[in-house]
Amino acid sequence: MANHPPISYRDYLKIETLLEIQKPRSNEFGHPAHDEMLFIITHQTYELWFKQILTEIDFVLASFGSEKVDEAIMGQAVSKLHRVIAILRLLVDQVSVLETMTSMEFLEFRNYLYPASGFQSVQWRLIENKLGLARETRLTYNSLPYTAFVSEPERDVLLASESQASLFQLVDTWLARTPFLQTEGFNFKVELKNAVDDMFTEDRDKVLGNTLLSDDERKKNIAAVEGMKQTFASLLEPEAFEKLRVDGIFRMSYGAIHAALFINLYRDEPILHMPFQLLTALQDIDELMTTWRYRHSLMAHRMIGMKVGTGGSTGAKYLKGATEGHRIFTDLFNLSTYLIPKSKRPVLPEGLRLKMRFN
Amino acid sequence: MANHPPISYRDYLKIETLLEIQKPRSNEFGHPAHDEMLFIITHQTYELWFKQILTEIDFVLASFGSEKVDEAIMGQAVSKLHRVIAILRLLVDQVSVLETMTSMEFLEFRNYLYPASGFQSVQWRLIENKLGLARETRLTYNSLPYTAFVSEPERDVLLASESQASLFQLVDTWLARTPFLQTEGFNFKVELKNAVDDMFTEDRDKVLGNTLLSDDERKKNIAAVEGMKQTFASLLEPEAFEKLRVDGIFRMSYGAIHAALFINLYRDEPILHMPFQLLTALQDIDELMTTWRYRHSLMAHRMIGMKVGTGGSTGAKYLKGATEGHRIFTDLFNLSTYLIPKSKRPVLPEGLRLKMRFN
Amino acid sequence: MANHPPISYRDYLKIETLLEIQKPRSNEFGHPAHDEMLFIITHQTYELWFKQILTEIDFVLASFGSEKVDEAIMGQAVSKLHRVIAILRLLVDQVSVLETMTSMEFLEFRNYLYPASGFQSVQWRLIENKLGLARETRLTYNSLPYTAFVSEPERDVLLASESQASLFQLVDTWLARTPFLQTEGFNFKVELKNAVDDMFTEDRDKVLGNTLLSDDERKKNIAAVEGMKQTFASLLEPEAFEKLRVDGIFRMSYGAIHAALFINLYRDEPILHMPFQLLTALQDIDELMTTWRYRHSLMAHRMIGMKVGTGGSTGAKYLKGATEGHRIFTDLFNLSTYLIPKSKRPVLPEGLRLKMRFN
Amino acid sequence: MANHPPISYRDYLKIETLLEIQKPRSNEFGHPAHDEMLFIITHQTYELWFKQILTEIDFVLASFGSEKVDEAIMGQAVSKLHRVIAILRLLVDQVSVLETMTSMEFLEFRNYLYPASGFQSVQWRLIENKLGLARETRLTYNSLPYTAFVSEPERDVLLASESQASLFQLVDTWLARTPFLQTEGFNFKVELKNAVDDMFTEDRDKVLGNTLLSDDERKKNIAAVEGMKQTFASLLEPEAFEKLRVDGIFRMSYGAIHAALFINLYRDEPILHMPFQLLTALQDIDELMTTWRYRHSLMAHRMIGMKVGTGGSTGAKYLKGATEGHRIFTDLFNLSTYLIPKSKRPVLPEGLRLKMRFN
Repeated sequence: MANHPPISYRDYLKIETLLEIQKPRSNEFGHPAHDEMLFIITHQTYELWFKQILTEIDFVLASFGSEKVDEAIMGQAVSKLHRVIAILRLLVDQVSVLETMTSMEFLEFRNYLYPASGFQSVQWRLIENKLGLARETRLTYNSLPYTAFVSEPERDVLLASESQASLFQLVDTWLARTPFLQTEGFNFKVELKNAVDDMFTEDRDKVLGNTLLSDDERKKNIAAVEGMKQTFASLLEPEAFEKLRVDGIFRMSYGAIHAALFINLYRDEPILHMPFQLLTALQDIDELMTTWRYRHSLMAHRMIGMKVGTGGSTGAKYLKGATEGHRIFTDLFNLSTYLIPKSKRPVLPEGLRLKMRFN
Repeated sequence: MANHPPISYRDYLKIETLLEIQKPRSNEFGHPAHDEMLFIITHQTYELWFKQILTEIDFVLASFGSEKVDEAIMGQAVSKLHRVIAILRLLVDQVSVLETMTSMEFLEFRNYLYPASGFQSVQWRLIENKLGLARETRLTYNSLPYTAFVSEPERDVLLASESQASLFQLVDTWLARTPFLQTEGFNFKVELKNAVDDMFTEDRDKVLGNTLLSDDERKKNIAAVEGMKQTFASLLEPEAFEKLRVDGIFRMSYGAIHAALFINLYRDEPILHMPFQLLTALQDIDELMTTWRYRHSLMAHRMIGMKVGTGGSTGAKYLKGATEGHRIFTDLFNLSTYLIPKSKRPVLPEGLRLKMRFN
Repeated sequence: MANHPPISYRDYLKIETLLEIQKPRSNEFGHPAHDEMLFIITHQTYELWFKQILTEIDFVLASFGSEKVDEAIMGQAVSKLHRVIAILRLLVDQVSVLETMTSMEFLEFRNYLYPASGFQSVQWRLIENKLGLARETRLTYNSLPYTAFVSEPERDVLLASESQASLFQLVDTWLARTPFLQTEGFNFKVELKNAVDDMFTEDRDKVLGNTLLSDDERKKNIAAVEGMKQTFASLLEPEAFEKLRVDGIFRMSYGAIHAALFINLYRDEPILHMPFQLLTALQDIDELMTTWRYRHSLMAHRMIGMKVGTGGSTGAKYLKGATEGHRIFTDLFNLSTYLIPKSKRPVLPEGLRLKMRFN
Repeated sequence: MANHPPISYRDYLKIETLLEIQKPRSNEFGHPAHDEMLFIITHQTYELWFKQILTEIDFVLASFGSEKVDEAIMGQAVSKLHRVIAILRLLVDQVSVLETMTSMEFLEFRNYLYPASGFQSVQWRLIENKLGLARETRLTYNSLPYTAFVSEPERDVLLASESQASLFQLVDTWLARTPFLQTEGFNFKVELKNAVDDMFTEDRDKVLGNTLLSDDERKKNIAAVEGMKQTFASLLEPEAFEKLRVDGIFRMSYGAIHAALFINLYRDEPILHMPFQLLTALQDIDELMTTWRYRHSLMAHRMIGMKVGTGGSTGAKYLKGATEGHRIFTDLFNLSTYLIPKSKRPVLPEGLRLKMRFN
C-alpha cells in the first residue's frame, strides 16, 4: 500500500552502525574488562535520550518564540513537555542499571577513560542552556568555565545556545503578556493586596482576642503575622521585589511572577488550564533534573569514594554542588510562599470570568 | 597518571556517529513528522540495551558451559543476571515513553516505515534463543517462521544460535549434576515420597475424623487429598513425569526438576544460596520479558487499533500470542505446585548438612 | 496561628489503631511465619489506595453527572484521573515487593488464610463497577457470580454500584452531547465519509497505476483497499455500527464514538484539549488496571504454581482470564483503527474553528 | 482442607477498621477539602511500610545479634534486606503520588494540621536508630532534640532503641571477627601495604621516566602519587586511621574496615558471596533513604515554598539538611577510595583459598 520504497527494520534504524560503535578501551589495550560495555551503553543511551529531549525543547521554544503564542499550539507544547518528563523519569531509573556495576569492576577499566568525563556531555549542557541555566550561576570546575572542557565546534554550539532566548526567558515574556491582570475594573495587584491585608488583619484580631495566650506568646504571634504581611508586600512593590531578585529568591520579572501567581490562583478557569499545566511541567522537569544529578552524585560516591574523577575533579563533590546550584525554575517553587487559600482570593468580576471561558 | 593516550568523552562514546544515525523518513520524503524521532530513538535505545543483555547472557553461558562450574563464578553469574533484570525493568518502563506518542502522531509517518517491524529485531530473537526458546514453540507470523523476516547474514546468526546450547539446556545439565540428591544413606526421591505420603495420610485421617463434615463433603475432601497425592507421585515416577513433559507442564529433565525442587526446599543451606538466587533470577527474567511483551501488545492496540501492522501482520494480536507462548522458564513457576512446607520436608542427615556448609 | 485545637501526627493519622490491625494468623495458631506480616501489609496498603482511587472516581462521577458539565470542572476532573494513574502505577510496582516473598515462605502460612482470597476485595469490584465494567462481562468464578463471595452489607454496596451511572456511561452521554459534529454548514459524518472515500479512491488509483505489480498483487491490494473502505463505512452507517456493537468491537453509542473520533482528529483546538486528555487518561487507567491484573497472574503462578487458590479457584487462571476480559474502555483503543492522517481530515469551517477557541 | 476456622478477606485484613480511620479535619471543621484524603492515605501507607521495614530490620538484628552468626541465616538476612530495598524503592516512587496534589490544594486544609508534622513519625526515627544513626549526628530541629517532638510512651521506645545494638554496630562487630585477615602465613594488612607500595613505586617510576613531561608536570604528578600513597597508608596505620575517624571519614572500627575491604577485594570467593551482598544491600538502603529524604525536600519546597512547616520549622530546609546528615553507612561508600584493581591485589595463599570454598 505504501508509496515509498520498502525499508527493513535494520536499515531504518541503522542497526549495523548503531551496534558497531561500542569500542571498549580495555579490549583495545589488551585487558578486556567485561563491564566496560555496560558503561559505554549506559552513556550512549543517555545521549540518545538527551537528543530526544532537545528535539522536544526545540519544539517548545519555537512555539513560544513568536509574538503571540497560538492557542492551538499550547496543547502540543504541554504534551511535549510531558514527554520530556517521561524521559527524565526513565533516566533517573537508569541510574539503577549502572549501579549494578561495582566499584571493583569499574576499577578494571577506569584508567583507560582518562580524561573523558560525563562533565563533557555537550547535549546535557545544551539542555540546561536552552531551558535557561544562566552562565553566571553555573559551577566552575577546577576554577574553569564549563566551555573549557569541550573542543571547538562544540564550544561554539554551546556559546550560541547561551545567546539564544531560553525557555525561561520566553516563558517569562509570555507570562508578562498575560492580559487578565489589569482589565477594566480589575487590578489584580491592588485586589490581591487588599485581600492579603484583610487576611492578616483578621489573623491579628484573632491573636489579640485570644485570652488563652500569654503576653509573650501574643507578642510572638503578632510578630509572625507582621512578618508574613511584609513577605507578601515585597512581592507587590517594585522596589521590594527587586530586592528579592537581588537575593536570588526570584529571577523572573515582576510582571511574570504576578501572572504566574494569577494562574495558580485561578487555574480552574478554562483559559488557564494549559498555562497551569505548563508551569507544573516546568517544575516537574526541574525536579527530575535535579533528582538525576543527585542520584548521580550518590553513585559517583559509591563508585570512586573520595578519589579524583577521571576528568580531574572530585566528581562526586562537583555533582553535589550542581544538584542544587543548577536548578532553573526555582521561582515557581518559591512562588508557593505567596499562595493563599481559595476562599481568600480576590473575586473575579463576572465579565472577566466570561472572557476566560469558551462562549 | 594514565598510561594510555588521553581520550575525550565525545571520542570515547563515538558521539558524532551515534547522533547522526537518526534519519526520519518523513523528513526524507518531505513531510516531516515531529514524533518520528521519538520512534527511532526509542527503538535504538532498545537495541543498545538488547546488546547489553546479550553481553551478559554470553557471560553466563560461558560460566555454565564447562564440565564443572567453578564455584567462584557463581557470584558473578548471578550478578550478571541481576543486571539483566535491572535492564528489563527499565525496558518495561520505557514503554511509557513511547506511549506519549498518540495514535494520530504515529499516523503522520507510519506509512513510511513499511514493511519494517519490531518483529525483525534480530537481537531480541537472539536473546530468546540463547535463553532457550525452542523453535517449535515459536509462534509463526502469517504462517511463516521467524527467520523468514530477516535477511541472510542475520538469518545465519539466528540459526547458529538455535544449534548452540541455550541457558535453559546448560542450567538443566548443571541441575541434573547436583550431587546431594543421592548420597550415602539419603535418597531424596525416596525420602520425599515418604514425607509426602505421611503428609497426605495425616490429611486423610483428619478428614475421616472430622465429624462436622457431611458424607458428601467428606467424599469430596478425600478425593481432593487423593488428587494431590497423585499430582506429587507423577513428579517422582519416571513414566508419569514423562507424561507431564508431553503435556508441556515440564520441559526440564527428570533429574533437573528434582534438583530444582531440592534447591527450593533447602535453600537456606549455604551451598544452595547462589543456586537458589540463580533459579529466582531466571524466573524474574521470564516474568519481565513476558511483561514487556504484554505492555507492548497493549501499546500496539492503542496505537493502531485493529489495523494491520507495518510488517503485514495484525501486530497487536501476534504480540498477545507471543506474550504467553514465548515464556521459557515456566518449569520453575510450575514447580511451586510441588513445594511442601518446611516442617514437612525430609530431614537432611547431619553428614549431608555439613557437606553443604563451609568447614 | 491556627484556629483549631492542635493535633499531633500520631492522633491525626490514627497511628495507634493503624499499626494494631496486623494480626498474623500464623502467630495466633502458634506457628509464627515471618512473611505473613508482608502479606497483610501489602494487601492493606492496596486497600488504602483503592479507597483513594474511589475518592477520585466519585469526584469525577459527580463532575460528569450533571446535565451540563461545568467547563471549570474539566481541569480538576482530568487532574483527579491523572492522580488515579499515578496510584495505579504505584500499585503495579508494588507487585515487586510482594514478590520478594518466595513460594516456600508463602506455604508457611497459606493454610491459615483459607478461604480468604483477593477475589473478595469489595473495593476493587467497586472500582470496576464505577468505571463501567458490566456485570455480564464479568468472569464467573467456579460458575458463581462475583457477589456470591462477599457477605451481605457489602453485597448491597456492590449491587447498588451496578445500578448507578458508571463513568463509562456518563462519558458516553457527555460525548454524545458534543455540539460541534453537526453545525450549520458542517456535518462531520458526511464530511468524514467524503474524506475517507477520496483517500481510498486515491489509494485505488495508485494501485491500478502501479505497473510494477503483478496481476495477483494488484488484485490483493485492491481487495485490501476495499476492505478498509468497508471498515470505515461500518463506523458511519447506523446498522453496520450496530453490528460492531453486537460483535463487541464497540460498546459506546453511535454518537459518542463519532465525538470521540472528532476529539482525536481535532484535539489541537483549545476547546478539545481537556476532552482529549480525558480520553487519554481513561485509556491509561484501563491499561494500568489490566497490567496490574497481568502482573498478579504471573505472581500467583510463581507463588502457587497450578495449585488451587485459597479461595477455592485456580487463582492464577482466573486472573489471566480477567486480565483481558475485564477491560472497560477498549472502545477508545479500537477507535485507533479509524483514525486518518491529519492531512486527510475534513477541513473545519472557519466559523466552527473560532467557536472552538477563546475569543 | 484447612484445620483452622475459616476466615474472610475482610476479617483477615481488618478492612472495616482500616477504612474507618481516615478522618479529614477539614470535614470535621466544616470546610471539606477533597485532597486531604490523599494526604492522610499517603502518610498511612508510609507508616504501614515503615512497620514492615522494622519487621525486616528486627529479623536481621536478631540474625547478627549472636556471638557466632549462623551460616544458614545469611541467605535469609540478605533477602530480608533486599525486601527493605524493594519497599524503599516504592516509597521513593510514592512521592510522585503525593505530588499530584498542588500547593493550592494543600492550602485548603493545611491550617487544620497544626502542629502535626512528618517530623513526628516515630517509626521512621526507629528505622534510623536501629540501622545505626547516632544521636549526636542527628540534626536538631529548632534547637531541640528529635525526642522533644513525641509524647511519652513513644519517647521511651525511641530512647530504648538508642541504647540497643544497632545494625551498624552488629555489622561492625561481625566484620571485625572475619577470620581470614590474619592466618598462618598471610597477614592481609602487611600484604596489602606491600601491594600498594609496589603499585605506587611503579607509578612513580613511570612518571620519572616520562620524557614528555615538563619539570613542573613531573613534580605535580609525583606529588599526586605521594598523596595517594599517604591516603592508603592512613587506612593501615592505627593512629592515622584514628584521625580519619575523628575527621568523620570513617565511623567503623579499624578491624571492621579492613574486613570490609577484604570482602570487596575477594568477593568472588564463595564464602564471601553473601557478605558482599550484605555490604551492597546496606549501601542500597542508605542511598534509597537519602533519596527519599531528598525527594521529600523537593516536594516540600514545591508545596510550601519558603513558608514555615506545620511543625513550626522551615520544613524544606530541615529535610535538605537531614538528606546528607542522616546517612548511616557512608563508611562503605568511602571505602571505594581504597580499592585497587584485581591485578594489583595480594595473591591469596592456596590454603586460604581452599578454606573459602566448599570442599
